[in-house]
Amino acid sequence: MELNPLNDLYFMKEALKEAQKAFDLNEVPVGCVIVCENKIISRSHNQTHRLNDATAHAEVIAITAASGYLGSKYLSDCTMYVTLEPCIMCAGAAYWAQFKKIVFGARDLNRGYLSLPKSILHPKTEVVRNILSNQSTKLLHDFFKNKR
Amino acid sequence: MELNPLNDLYFMKEALKEAQKAFDLNEVPVGCVIVCENKIISRSHNQTHRLNDATAHAEVIAITAASGYLGSKYLSDCTMYVTLEPCIMCAGAAYWAQFKKIVFGARDLNRGYLSLPKSILHPKTEVVRNILSNQSTKLLHDFFKNKR
Repeated sequence: MELNPLNDLYFMKEALKEAQKAFDLNEVPVGCVIVCENKIISRSHNQTHRLNDATAHAEVIAITAASGYLGSKYLSDCTMYVTLEPCIMCAGAAYWAQFKKIVFGARDLNRGYLSLPKSILHPKTEVVRNILSNQSTKLLHDFFKNKR
Repeated sequence: MELNPLNDLYFMKEALKEAQKAFDLNEVPVGCVIVCENKIISRSHNQTHRLNDATAHAEVIAITAASGYLGSKYLSDCTMYVTLEPCIMCAGAAYWAQFKKIVFGARDLNRGYLSLPKSILHPKTEVVRNILSNQSTKLLHDFFKNKR
């Protein structure tokens, strides 16, 4: 069955392709795409190791690229798809970008923004969780298994 | 009296020079320098407007530059001087960078990381507040006064 190109599952599959790229490059496998009017306007994966930059998470890179594409620092008509629950930095970035919607895969019980006792996303941002979380978790599990 | 080039006041003055640059460019006036072994290794100011990028806060830019300079995503021997209390995104970035110390000027009661009920900085990071906060506040006040 071909995926409907306009739904969350389709775009999360694209984010997972980015996570796989990170995996292949020996980066913590997290991927992200940003979608505006059903079109992917930026895609990225975690690059903290390659760029030697703790801020080079998939989401931060994708937000910068999407903003460059749209010529706007506000992404209030956009949806961010990310394979792992955003960390506090990335959720803080998403707050400033004012996303319409954030869709994420697996929970991050260590540094995910949901570990905070109060919401830090923009009040207008809708959140959808647990989309293809098993695939995301498997990739992360395989990555860290190889490290130990 | 000349400032001792090795103390917090000296480096915060440098961060304030960066904030002034932001002011002159019609950006929210926040400045930052990162110091390693008493040497400034990166300096930046807020550029969200010019770069159309919500993540282009002074701290994020300075962290990326400092990491590039040192060739390390960890800045655990560095101190970050910033004229305003870091926001949640920037404090989240500082967590990943594992700063030795963060020195900030004025409080940000709206989006400062201290508004959260739990600490989000790295447990090893020492925090010093309220350094030249009046100068920082005045710059911000003048900036927003001109906007209204």
